[in-house]
Amino acid sequence: MRYHETPLQVRFNEVDAYGVVWHGHYISWFEAGRNELTERFHLGPLQLKERNLLAPVVELTCQFKLPASFGDALIIQTTMERTEVAKLGFHYRVLHKKNGKILATGSTTHVLTDLDGTLLYRVPPEVLESIEEMRKYLEV
Amino acid sequence: MRYHETPLQVRFNEVDAYGVVWHGHYISWFEAGRNELTERFHLGPLQLKERNLLAPVVELTCQFKLPASFGDALIIQTTMERTEVAKLGFHYRVLHKKNGKILATGSTTHVLTDLDGTLLYRVPPEVLESIEEMRKYLEV
Amino acid sequence: MRYHETPLQVRFNEVDAYGVVWHGHYISWFEAGRNELTERFHLGPLQLKERNLLAPVVELTCQFKLPASFGDALIIQTTMERTEVAKLGFHYRVLHKKNGKILATGSTTHVLTDLDGTLLYRVPPEVLESIEEMRKYLEV
Amino acid sequence: MRYHETPLQVRFNEVDAYGVVWHGHYISWFEAGRNELTERFHLGPLQLKERNLLAPVVELTCQFKLPASFGDALIIQTTMERTEVAKLGFHYRVLHKKNGKILATGSTTHVLTDLDGTLLYRVPPEVLESIEEMRKYLEV
Repeated sequence: MRYHETPLQVRFNEVDAYGVVWHGHYISWFEAGRNELTERFHLGPLQLKERNLLAPVVELTCQFKLPASFGDALIIQTTMERTEVAKLGFHYRVLHKKNGKILATGSTTHVLTDLDGTLLYRVPPEVLESIEEMRKYLEV
Repeated sequence: MRYHETPLQVRFNEVDAYGVVWHGHYISWFEAGRNELTERFHLGPLQLKERNLLAPVVELTCQFKLPASFGDALIIQTTMERTEVAKLGFHYRVLHKKNGKILATGSTTHVLTDLDGTLLYRVPPEVLESIEEMRKYLEV
Repeated sequence: MRYHETPLQVRFNEVDAYGVVWHGHYISWFEAGRNELTERFHLGPLQLKERNLLAPVVELTCQFKLPASFGDALIIQTTMERTEVAKLGFHYRVLHKKNGKILATGSTTHVLTDLDGTLLYRVPPEVLESIEEMRKYLEV
Repeated sequence: MRYHETPLQVRFNEVDAYGVVWHGHYISWFEAGRNELTERFHLGPLQLKERNLLAPVVELTCQFKLPASFGDALIIQTTMERTEVAKLGFHYRVLHKKNGKILATGSTTHVLTDLDGTLLYRVPPEVLESIEEMRKYLEV
């Protein structure tokens, strides 16, 4: 298994009254990593929409290990897990670029729906193919 | 002239590393006040869309007088100014509920466009009527 | 067990390109509910700080059931679970005010630390007392 | 006069229900550009704090010309203007990286205060020196 890596720098407005990144912002970082990964395989939000699909988040988890501070250079690592058909599971790690320490881990689970939000019984073959290519790239 | 008033409480994640509200969040508060006002006159974002109109912000200003802190109970005051046709100008004040002190003032200017973003040469009479009603309410 | 309830209205800037609330904003709503609850028992962020304590989030989960839209009136329900000493576990439900439908559920786990971030071996008795009062109120 | 340039990519959660960047997010982009510039001259938020100074925003303006969309590669351009002593004035332009079109312009005005928020009558000479170096770099 490998991770796709997205560099990111902590913005001043992401830091809270305790001088550390407010925990909710990690969710947007996971998304930034996921979108950069999925766009490579024509599975980004806009590309899915062109294929008449949506991939809403149905579950997310986040485990916070160490705080991040304003200006910190981070790496968002994104990978997938094998899941049942019509679901996509992503895993994330947020690392300090300088020392490789893991600040947080997390996951999001997505379902595939049509543009009306109806769950797909069956994923279109060309979309399955894109997912398969993404899996090969991530070695999962 | 009178102000429409919207109560609001400062959230923890709106406060920055200096322990005061991060300045950019006032923009969302202005919007909360404006939307509450305009919805009363069928001029809210969704109501405009039903009338095939958009009202994008083309200019905003904000003057910061005093800081706000986590948990503060605030009042967002919203009013309008008379502007040229096909523009809407709103003015805002953010006050401490307890002592009436003004924390910030600001303004947004909006143009009216169709759903493709083309500027309206002429505002539909029924929309002008709604704007006129809003002006009466605000005594401007 | 009972829930503490916090009313909340969806802001325009919380809605994403799909016309529904962006999933990360639920985290700030959970926090709004939690802070309103904990402040009643002198366990809010500022009150803890006065007691030389912090309660950082170490884990969060969120399950998304139904989308929320701009302007929706919501209820954030917050309760606690019994956890091991020096940890606090909160559970949340986000409901549509009008029809009581559950839009999302979630949880956050917090540790108690001193102001330097060192985990507490032992929670001060007066803090334990406040937690016990909160539990009584929530009937857990 | 020259601009300091900061590259930036539009995140999914910065786009609103109209499919374009929500106007308030430009404020955080201005800040990202300003912080990258000022840090080069030991005038970033943390560096000022080490010098016992704060530089709160007292005024901001933003003019919106063209919308930005999810995934757009942007350039934030930041420069200064000459202002009276104990004030700092920054100007910003947000450009499409691909075609150089200007999406927005803006400004922020900052005062210099001590850590208690008291306005400085007199800027410390070593801070004036840093500001002078920044001006040279920006050719203003």
